[in-house]
Amino acid sequence: MATAHPVARGPRPKRSSSNRAVDFLLGRHIATNEAEQRKIGPLEGVPAMGLDGLGSSAYGPEAALTILMPLGAASLSLVEPIVALLVALLAVLYVSYRQTVAAYPSNGGAYVVARENLGETASLLAAAAIMIDYILNVAVGISAGVAALISAVPSLHAWTLPLCLGVLVLITLINLRGTQESGRVLALPTYGFVACFLVIIGIGVVEAIRHGGVPTPVIAPPPLAGGTEAVSLWLLLRAFASGCTAMTGVEAVSNGVNAFRAPVVRNARATLSAICAILGLLLIGIAYLGKAYKVGAMDQSQPDYQSVLSQLCGAVVGHGWFYYVAMATLLCVLALSANTSFVGFPRLCRLVAEHGYLPKPFAVAGRRLVYSVGILYLAVTAGLLLIAFGGITDRLIPLFAIGAFATFTLSQAGMVAHWLREARGGSEGRNRVRLGVNALGTATTAVALAIIVVAKFAEGAWITVLAVPLVIFGLKGIHGYYVRLAERLRPAGPLDLSATDAPVVLVATRGWDRLSEKALRFAVRLSPDVVATHLLDLDGEDDRDALKALQAQWRHEVEEPARLAGGPVPRLMVLQASYRRIHAPLLKLIERIQAEQPDRIVAVLVPVIAKPHWWQALLHTRHASRLSQSLLRYGGDKVVVINVPLHVGADLPEDGLIDQERPAVRRQAAE
Amino acid sequence: MATAHPVARGPRPKRSSSNRAVDFLLGRHIATNEAEQRKIGPLEGVPAMGLDGLGSSAYGPEAALTILMPLGAASLSLVEPIVALLVALLAVLYVSYRQTVAAYPSNGGAYVVARENLGETASLLAAAAIMIDYILNVAVGISAGVAALISAVPSLHAWTLPLCLGVLVLITLINLRGTQESGRVLALPTYGFVACFLVIIGIGVVEAIRHGGVPTPVIAPPPLAGGTEAVSLWLLLRAFASGCTAMTGVEAVSNGVNAFRAPVVRNARATLSAICAILGLLLIGIAYLGKAYKVGAMDQSQPDYQSVLSQLCGAVVGHGWFYYVAMATLLCVLALSANTSFVGFPRLCRLVAEHGYLPKPFAVAGRRLVYSVGILYLAVTAGLLLIAFGGITDRLIPLFAIGAFATFTLSQAGMVAHWLREARGGSEGRNRVRLGVNALGTATTAVALAIIVVAKFAEGAWITVLAVPLVIFGLKGIHGYYVRLAERLRPAGPLDLSATDAPVVLVATRGWDRLSEKALRFAVRLSPDVVATHLLDLDGEDDRDALKALQAQWRHEVEEPARLAGGPVPRLMVLQASYRRIHAPLLKLIERIQAEQPDRIVAVLVPVIAKPHWWQALLHTRHASRLSQSLLRYGGDKVVVINVPLHVGADLPEDGLIDQERPAVRRQAAE
Repeated sequence: MATAHPVARGPRPKRSSSNRAVDFLLGRHIATNEAEQRKIGPLEGVPAMGLDGLGSSAYGPEAALTILMPLGAASLSLVEPIVALLVALLAVLYVSYRQTVAAYPSNGGAYVVARENLGETASLLAAAAIMIDYILNVAVGISAGVAALISAVPSLHAWTLPLCLGVLVLITLINLRGTQESGRVLALPTYGFVACFLVIIGIGVVEAIRHGGVPTPVIAPPPLAGGTEAVSLWLLLRAFASGCTAMTGVEAVSNGVNAFRAPVVRNARATLSAICAILGLLLIGIAYLGKAYKVGAMDQSQPDYQSVLSQLCGAVVGHGWFYYVAMATLLCVLALSANTSFVGFPRLCRLVAEHGYLPKPFAVAGRRLVYSVGILYLAVTAGLLLIAFGGITDRLIPLFAIGAFATFTLSQAGMVAHWLREARGGSEGRNRVRLGVNALGTATTAVALAIIVVAKFAEGAWITVLAVPLVIFGLKGIHGYYVRLAERLRPAGPLDLSATDAPVVLVATRGWDRLSEKALRFAVRLSPDVVATHLLDLDGEDDRDALKALQAQWRHEVEEPARLAGGPVPRLMVLQASYRRIHAPLLKLIERIQAEQPDRIVAVLVPVIAKPHWWQALLHTRHASRLSQSLLRYGGDKVVVINVPLHVGADLPEDGLIDQERPAVRRQAAE
Repeated sequence: MATAHPVARGPRPKRSSSNRAVDFLLGRHIATNEAEQRKIGPLEGVPAMGLDGLGSSAYGPEAALTILMPLGAASLSLVEPIVALLVALLAVLYVSYRQTVAAYPSNGGAYVVARENLGETASLLAAAAIMIDYILNVAVGISAGVAALISAVPSLHAWTLPLCLGVLVLITLINLRGTQESGRVLALPTYGFVACFLVIIGIGVVEAIRHGGVPTPVIAPPPLAGGTEAVSLWLLLRAFASGCTAMTGVEAVSNGVNAFRAPVVRNARATLSAICAILGLLLIGIAYLGKAYKVGAMDQSQPDYQSVLSQLCGAVVGHGWFYYVAMATLLCVLALSANTSFVGFPRLCRLVAEHGYLPKPFAVAGRRLVYSVGILYLAVTAGLLLIAFGGITDRLIPLFAIGAFATFTLSQAGMVAHWLREARGGSEGRNRVRLGVNALGTATTAVALAIIVVAKFAEGAWITVLAVPLVIFGLKGIHGYYVRLAERLRPAGPLDLSATDAPVVLVATRGWDRLSEKALRFAVRLSPDVVATHLLDLDGEDDRDALKALQAQWRHEVEEPARLAGGPVPRLMVLQASYRRIHAPLLKLIERIQAEQPDRIVAVLVPVIAKPHWWQALLHTRHASRLSQSLLRYGGDKVVVINVPLHVGADLPEDGLIDQERPAVRRQAAE
């Protein structure tokens, strides 16, 4: 029977004038069935999800070289083996995530993999680690970009934090408009960066080969000092661990699989392949040219500091226009690598919220089909981090890589469990190889994670180590709330239709006018037991004569007609509002009624003047809505609040309920 | 009969934890009957209402001297006659306002006097002028104080605007706590300033007399240059008009009469007398010593600039500790003269709002019995002015004095009309003198106003001249809205008890749970015509199998029991929410129902989960309250919204409705 009801199509909501400005800023509302059109392919996927991974190539090798600085010129011979290890690790991660994307095509982040294979706590650990990492990535990306800009234009130095926050606001707005637009906006700097640095590496490699491995730099990098330390295993491990920051962001694709259009797995894999291939090329190229041109890391606190990439560019192509174009794209990519988080974080939060570990609003798609609450939460948290750390990259970095490597480890461990389970299921052969790859990956990333935690603990890693369990605790608390809520909401079975007493009806009045009359007419329909309440001294001391006049009016206009009609008589009760708060006297009265008649429902009628225009909110007190809210909150289970609106004519918009869609929107909605 | 109902005393409202922080910042709630205790006497009145008037003594004489600068040393002989004129004008204003305070003891500002004697438009002109002046006074006072501070500590120069805004926030908080406290906080700097400068003037006068009118300065003021211009009437008038800025703030007492405790008139007059006497003494002293010590104005844009008061202090007592104490109190008084506006502006707005020319919220007394909306509006507007003009006093000054003199003129013109009416009423004699005084005052202030407008028009006075009619237009527009509203609310007469059809009841459900069950039980009581609505795809695409399950459940759990009981059967209707907006499909449905049955009331039941704790708002979507709001706004006159709350047990605070008053408050409430 019920299925026979037609499914009514919702109209587009009425637009008020204030909404038009929001439309302009954020774009029009998008229908749920337009979701497929909003999805992305590999061409938009690389900028949208790869900026973080590609941007890491700028600081990963440099971080390793910085650790090797005490070795002096001897460091050069160690760069290639370390980068070879990094590229091998990248390959392991690539193969692993390729498998993950195929195994979990709806959304294959570490959270999902851990949840499916390792249980609740591991999944929450992954969720906490990756959420913290996403937030830190925004702060680090933006501050690194702004710091690079400020190195180029030192006069902007005093504006560091405002610049960081400005970039943050810009990225937030872009993302509130939706992924596709943001993919387009980001395409130019991303592909520009890739093109510039592949050209530089290409020229450099050709030069190096032409000169038998010892090319002549256009602008020679500063000579490397003699070593002050000998090579040690600890130093190599630390250099490797620092270099691992180049890996951050590789997992972004696996978290955002369902942002891709069909064929989902193929598009996601193509994006992942492109990102990993470019990152690998960049790392190998930087390592090879770094050794050929004898480029070492420099101390960032010194005024003559130049980054490794800046030295390399100068050595290969000199300081012409191409150098500045390349550095500009690098700045953009660093600043915008924050964008990867804005794609991944809201999707992860949505998933976690759907499982009941984050508040439900994280799972509500906003006007542009993006999860606005997650985007705003990310923006605010990253903004607070930027403010707390003054927008200084160096202070944020030690907190950063832990989340990424905890994520890698959990993701790969989850995949190991996945293959083990599959193996128990029967399918052997290829899975043993995959198991081996993932086991190696787990071991490598776990070692790297341990080294990072130990080496950077005092520098700030302790903050992350402390934050992760706190976040897990919070997630579990939220889950507990929803579990208890669901238990309490569980249906008691079939509808109970046993008769109940008519409710006691209270009508909140402010005098005898059309508002009160309309409410009272509805009230006498509901119950023979109607009491109108009048609050005295609500806005300062009231005139006692006016009260007497109201009471006389009540006798003539209400009680007499009711008595003549032979029906029950609505009484007028005067309550004292000593603190000018409307809800306290009413709650007290309800308490008194319920003490006498505990089983009866108390229905409170709150008459309201309908305010269809936003500016009307400025011209009326908020008494009615505050009263309704307070009664619902504190009135207990037997109180029902009834809002009776009165439209006062000219203030009702003339178009009434007629749809005011703009033609373009109407067309799309009709599709 | 109705008078026999007991007047129930309201309990103090429940305190939530979030409110405690607000309590700490703003102070506890104050009962209406505590109002008398909050009122002030002359001792608190002088700081609370006199800071503006007294602070003007710092810039009034200097402004006149600045106009006279082109005369060089010849200017010295003109200071005394001009200040004599100013003091005469002050005396006229004093006598006039003394009479006004007695004639209008409830609140005797220019707005009230003009309203009583000159009609609506004149009263709105006065209201607009005085409101603009109050706002400008805040901006000018704060920026002048901060500018003086910055002259003393030049390293703070870059922080001008943040300092201005910080002072603004501080003053706002002090005033949100209430007048008495702010009177106390301001007493020290005010009386300190008065004491310091009376001591300096005293020493200076004694020295001058001892040396036959030619005292030896401790630190000689810079010598005055030769004149470049001859004396002209235009120059003298302009100097007089500029000097008139010393008069601003004198009207504050008349606007705030009802802030005084009984005997109101005597306290207000005593305060007015004290302020005018001190201001007069300061003006005469400054003029006498200025001539004796040969102090002239200096160009503020020059780096060696010193204010007239600073030169005077140096000449009389040198640059010892006393100089710095005196200058510090001067800084405080200038910055805090803004406070006068915070006392006067909200009270004026309350009055205007009670007459229906400003939004009603301006007339609602906040937790501390002050008119919080007015205070916040003043703070925000002054803050925007400070930001727009960069916190620079010089740019604000030309906008400033116009409002004050328009106010004086209207107030005195109103008093003239008052005495004329009284004269017609019979009482002659003394009133003719009063009439003469006020007529002279009207003429003088009108001339000064005309000169200020002409002389400063291009410098910024045009902004004020433009703003006043705009404000009047706005006030009249608001009044029109309230008049129309009152007409529409006027009672249609006695209660109409004719029978009406039972409403069509729509129940917004999200599945079959206890929430829906409770709402449905209430719904079937209201009407035989109950339709439950289920919104599809509200949070993204829903599972169609889940919908089928819900429909089956509905048949078993709702329709079958209803059919067995022989009653009407509540139906389940599925609505498509393509844009994830909850209200649009329901409004469409209501429109359809009303097209068929235009006279029936449509009651929409919106079940809500009661959220007694603030943090619960973070864990739930705002669907229910948004739906209720939209239905009330756009649903038309026949829609009633019923909120049925479900308390989910553990989340209901254990203390329930029990009063949680702190002992001190309980005691006071019992009085």
